[in-house]
Amino acid sequence: MKIAFIGLGNMGGSMAQNLLKSGQMVSGFDLSEQALQHFAEAGGVICDSPQAAAQEADVIITMLPAAKHVRDVYLGEHGILAVLKAGSLCIDSSTIDPQTIKDIAALGSEKQIQVCDAPVSGGTMGAKNGTLTFMVGADHAGYEAVKPILSFMGKNIVHCGAVGTGQVAKICNNLILGISMTAVAEGMALGAKLGIDPQALAGVINSSSGRCWSSEVNNPWPDICENAPASRGYTEGFATQLMLKDLGLAIEAAGQVKQPVLLGGLVQQLYQQLCLQGDANLDFSSIIQHYLPTKVS
Amino acid sequence: MKIAFIGLGNMGGSMAQNLLKSGQMVSGFDLSEQALQHFAEAGGVICDSPQAAAQEADVIITMLPAAKHVRDVYLGEHGILAVLKAGSLCIDSSTIDPQTIKDIAALGSEKQIQVCDAPVSGGTMGAKNGTLTFMVGADHAGYEAVKPILSFMGKNIVHCGAVGTGQVAKICNNLILGISMTAVAEGMALGAKLGIDPQALAGVINSSSGRCWSSEVNNPWPDICENAPASRGYTEGFATQLMLKDLGLAIEAAGQVKQPVLLGGLVQQLYQQLCLQGDANLDFSSIIQHYLPTKVS
Amino acid sequence: MKIAFIGLGNMGGSMAQNLLKSGQMVSGFDLSEQALQHFAEAGGVICDSPQAAAQEADVIITMLPAAKHVRDVYLGEHGILAVLKAGSLCIDSSTIDPQTIKDIAALGSEKQIQVCDAPVSGGTMGAKNGTLTFMVGADHAGYEAVKPILSFMGKNIVHCGAVGTGQVAKICNNLILGISMTAVAEGMALGAKLGIDPQALAGVINSSSGRCWSSEVNNPWPDICENAPASRGYTEGFATQLMLKDLGLAIEAAGQVKQPVLLGGLVQQLYQQLCLQGDANLDFSSIIQHYLPTKVS
Amino acid sequence: MKIAFIGLGNMGGSMAQNLLKSGQMVSGFDLSEQALQHFAEAGGVICDSPQAAAQEADVIITMLPAAKHVRDVYLGEHGILAVLKAGSLCIDSSTIDPQTIKDIAALGSEKQIQVCDAPVSGGTMGAKNGTLTFMVGADHAGYEAVKPILSFMGKNIVHCGAVGTGQVAKICNNLILGISMTAVAEGMALGAKLGIDPQALAGVINSSSGRCWSSEVNNPWPDICENAPASRGYTEGFATQLMLKDLGLAIEAAGQVKQPVLLGGLVQQLYQQLCLQGDANLDFSSIIQHYLPTKVS
Repeated sequence: MKIAFIGLGNMGGSMAQNLLKSGQMVSGFDLSEQALQHFAEAGGVICDSPQAAAQEADVIITMLPAAKHVRDVYLGEHGILAVLKAGSLCIDSSTIDPQTIKDIAALGSEKQIQVCDAPVSGGTMGAKNGTLTFMVGADHAGYEAVKPILSFMGKNIVHCGAVGTGQVAKICNNLILGISMTAVAEGMALGAKLGIDPQALAGVINSSSGRCWSSEVNNPWPDICENAPASRGYTEGFATQLMLKDLGLAIEAAGQVKQPVLLGGLVQQLYQQLCLQGDANLDFSSIIQHYLPTKVS
Repeated sequence: MKIAFIGLGNMGGSMAQNLLKSGQMVSGFDLSEQALQHFAEAGGVICDSPQAAAQEADVIITMLPAAKHVRDVYLGEHGILAVLKAGSLCIDSSTIDPQTIKDIAALGSEKQIQVCDAPVSGGTMGAKNGTLTFMVGADHAGYEAVKPILSFMGKNIVHCGAVGTGQVAKICNNLILGISMTAVAEGMALGAKLGIDPQALAGVINSSSGRCWSSEVNNPWPDICENAPASRGYTEGFATQLMLKDLGLAIEAAGQVKQPVLLGGLVQQLYQQLCLQGDANLDFSSIIQHYLPTKVS
Repeated sequence: MKIAFIGLGNMGGSMAQNLLKSGQMVSGFDLSEQALQHFAEAGGVICDSPQAAAQEADVIITMLPAAKHVRDVYLGEHGILAVLKAGSLCIDSSTIDPQTIKDIAALGSEKQIQVCDAPVSGGTMGAKNGTLTFMVGADHAGYEAVKPILSFMGKNIVHCGAVGTGQVAKICNNLILGISMTAVAEGMALGAKLGIDPQALAGVINSSSGRCWSSEVNNPWPDICENAPASRGYTEGFATQLMLKDLGLAIEAAGQVKQPVLLGGLVQQLYQQLCLQGDANLDFSSIIQHYLPTKVS
Repeated sequence: MKIAFIGLGNMGGSMAQNLLKSGQMVSGFDLSEQALQHFAEAGGVICDSPQAAAQEADVIITMLPAAKHVRDVYLGEHGILAVLKAGSLCIDSSTIDPQTIKDIAALGSEKQIQVCDAPVSGGTMGAKNGTLTFMVGADHAGYEAVKPILSFMGKNIVHCGAVGTGQVAKICNNLILGISMTAVAEGMALGAKLGIDPQALAGVINSSSGRCWSSEVNNPWPDICENAPASRGYTEGFATQLMLKDLGLAIEAAGQVKQPVLLGGLVQQLYQQLCLQGDANLDFSSIIQHYLPTKVS
């Protein structure tokens, strides 16, 4: 089985390396020379365009920054859909809006090419360690086909439904995440101001109905979670600007179907404000600084 | 040890019965004849005023609707602080603002009376089954003194810090809860509108970073959690108007210390809107109807 | 006609001086020695308690910081309602919640004392220059009675309806004001970031449907309105903490009648955040700094 | 001077008729047969494509629903930029994002074609009566060139700055408008609930600092403004879905420059909620129903 991997950045690069480690033959493309270099060192075959990488492949995996790149790689002037052979299988692991991948899948099916979405959670560490969660949007046969391939790169391969639903699951999850992180920041800062020890407060919350991933695993108050970004100056986490991007996807998708996202609409702007104030690269738990008299960094 | 119990409503009545079952001698007072009747049937000694109930007691427990009732019972014209004997121990389990109980405790200490706060979580079922969580605000000795008593009525007795911090813990937890419930409602409704199966979406969220008590235990989408109010028409839960009361306490306390609660300020108003529209008595997960074209009930 | 004036601060002091200038006999009380000194220099009769000032008066005017002071002066242990003669007329010009003054008026009417509310707009300059607007809550006869007195201190005496409605008018107006100021700040900052000249943008808005008092008279962008606080470092205006107080009154009154104030709930918290960050004394148009990368002052 | 008019709908049709009335020669295109019919009856020359209408024209005016239509008409496969003669002048009066028109203007200038933006305010009545306001984005010479032409269709031709700033002015104005309308709805509903007569309240607001276009001209409470939509069941106004579109443009443009729009982000979602509940075609002052126990229509 020949695999093509397009998009060898922080996430895609590590994912491709895990494929290579498992013994797969992988050709790859990226705009960055450095990314290609690392890929070659790990045993990958460098190609000079997406088409070159994809045309002989049985499976094509794309991991790109935004919908416009995905559209361009699949449908653009030198897009891969024009050169792929019938029967090939495309897996897009980028985080983008659900409609884009549904459009591409519809065009693919006209050429007997199956396209599915499989966005990930787990971050750069999950990509490196092969412990990503994949949220797969595909029909039943498609899911069965992608599962063994994705298993080389992740440990949790979830079938969400038809094509596009992987993206839906991801953006709905991250919408809730962005809001609940802000909620925890608000509640922790309020408690501290009212005089309770933050450790004690976190203890109560985590054994009660306020508990959530953001209170238990990534608490925005320093030194509650030993390994959380808040305990190391909000560095090396899920960047504020990436949370902002994901909230933007949720709100855009909501707008397309005329669905209100009341808290999401506000929280997106609170993250925008954080970026304006210079903290786009800090972990998204740095939203807590909206609740503190001075900046956290 | 003689115990007085003031406030024998839905919560207090069940708590007092658990004290009686454990063999304690309990005198009680409530404004409701029916509440007193139930208390007497369970073996309690009915008194005709808070002072009458409290004056011989070693331990006084109060469970009242709001701060004004607590102030009145302790400090009013016929308040109990005037008649309590030195060395007695007061436990207020009402959910009120932190300042009120700190004020009462300060006045109590002038008379060698220890006053602590111990608000609860667990609802009417927890009160009935003796499985409440108590969040205790008291000094170390106070906590050791109240712990065995509260253990007759609950199974989780958490020491939060000095007097008042029990209330702080409760309102911060419920602030986060109200926001995260709204977040889950928003995310579930968005996902459903975008075409993912709600069961599948809940599955992804609950194994990912969006997971929280409101997604796992009390999911606002019907038939995700079998025993949640959403699966029985949003009845028999934690009423919207009680969530509104608790959010009001959080925002009032925040105002006293000049602390912003951005999402709390908005979510309080969304719950207010729900009450205006006639759903004050539904479970607070009925907030999901802000995201649906038609009313849920 | 003997007038008593209780509360001789920044606002009340100037108002009392205008009464004195018009030839009225005014006795007065304040907790501040300096305030009393200025009052005496202007020809006022200093008294050593509210009761002493009020007991011989035909008309009593109160101008106090908050509801608790108003309750205390009228109803407290040494409150004036106990000593006022039947037929006297009380005018409360403080900005407080509507319910407090309705309660006091009900108690007053039992003693043939008419109590009405007449909060002001126009700020310290309006107080000094006698150009205040009074929003009067009183029955028709009460309005006719207070009108000539208030005319010594203001130029616009508006009858809003029954007692309490003066406060309702004021808090509803200031609720809209706080939100529309934030809206203008948001729109001006967005336009500037998108590259339009702020003067040109203000010109369009002020001749179009976005126009409002905050865009025309008190524009939060510097140098749009020559005499606005924004053109002098946000000093000498209507302080952020006073806007925060008025929004608090609106939201509290809304809560009492279970009425949602969605934007008010959020804007209150944005003002709270501004105070937390150290700008409680700047003009409330400094809310624009939420939209700027660096602080305005 | 030959004029081409592309987009002859509710707005464009009336605008083109005013050009014809003033004696101009106008060729036109629209997808709707009926629109073309009306245009022909008024003396216009019907063309069967945008290119056919534009290729001989000196001035081209476009009035289209959204950015994608504008891009398509100017830059698409059969786009007009390819056939326009050097020296021609394009005026886009659509309401779209600022970036699209800047992109088109940049491409136009390569071919000696000047492109400027001139979105309008004044609605369908203003279009019919020739009383529109045009917000022009163009260099000085461009503004002088478009002014006499636009004067046939409007009475207020405002120069906002360089190309794109007409759109910036419009979306910033409408951002403020959407928020201040919601503020007035919130304040009027609160006042009414607190017992003040809405007429009296509106009187106070309109002579005080809460006054704005939405309180004075288009008050959302029925029977305050005789000719406002609120006084005729919220019909025949500026539709909620159009306000939603304009808020979307503001928020999208804000996102492109990383500028927070805190209230805009929330108000957009409140309008989305209104559309979800079935009121997309009511005047945008129907936002008041978020503050009422029952629907207004």
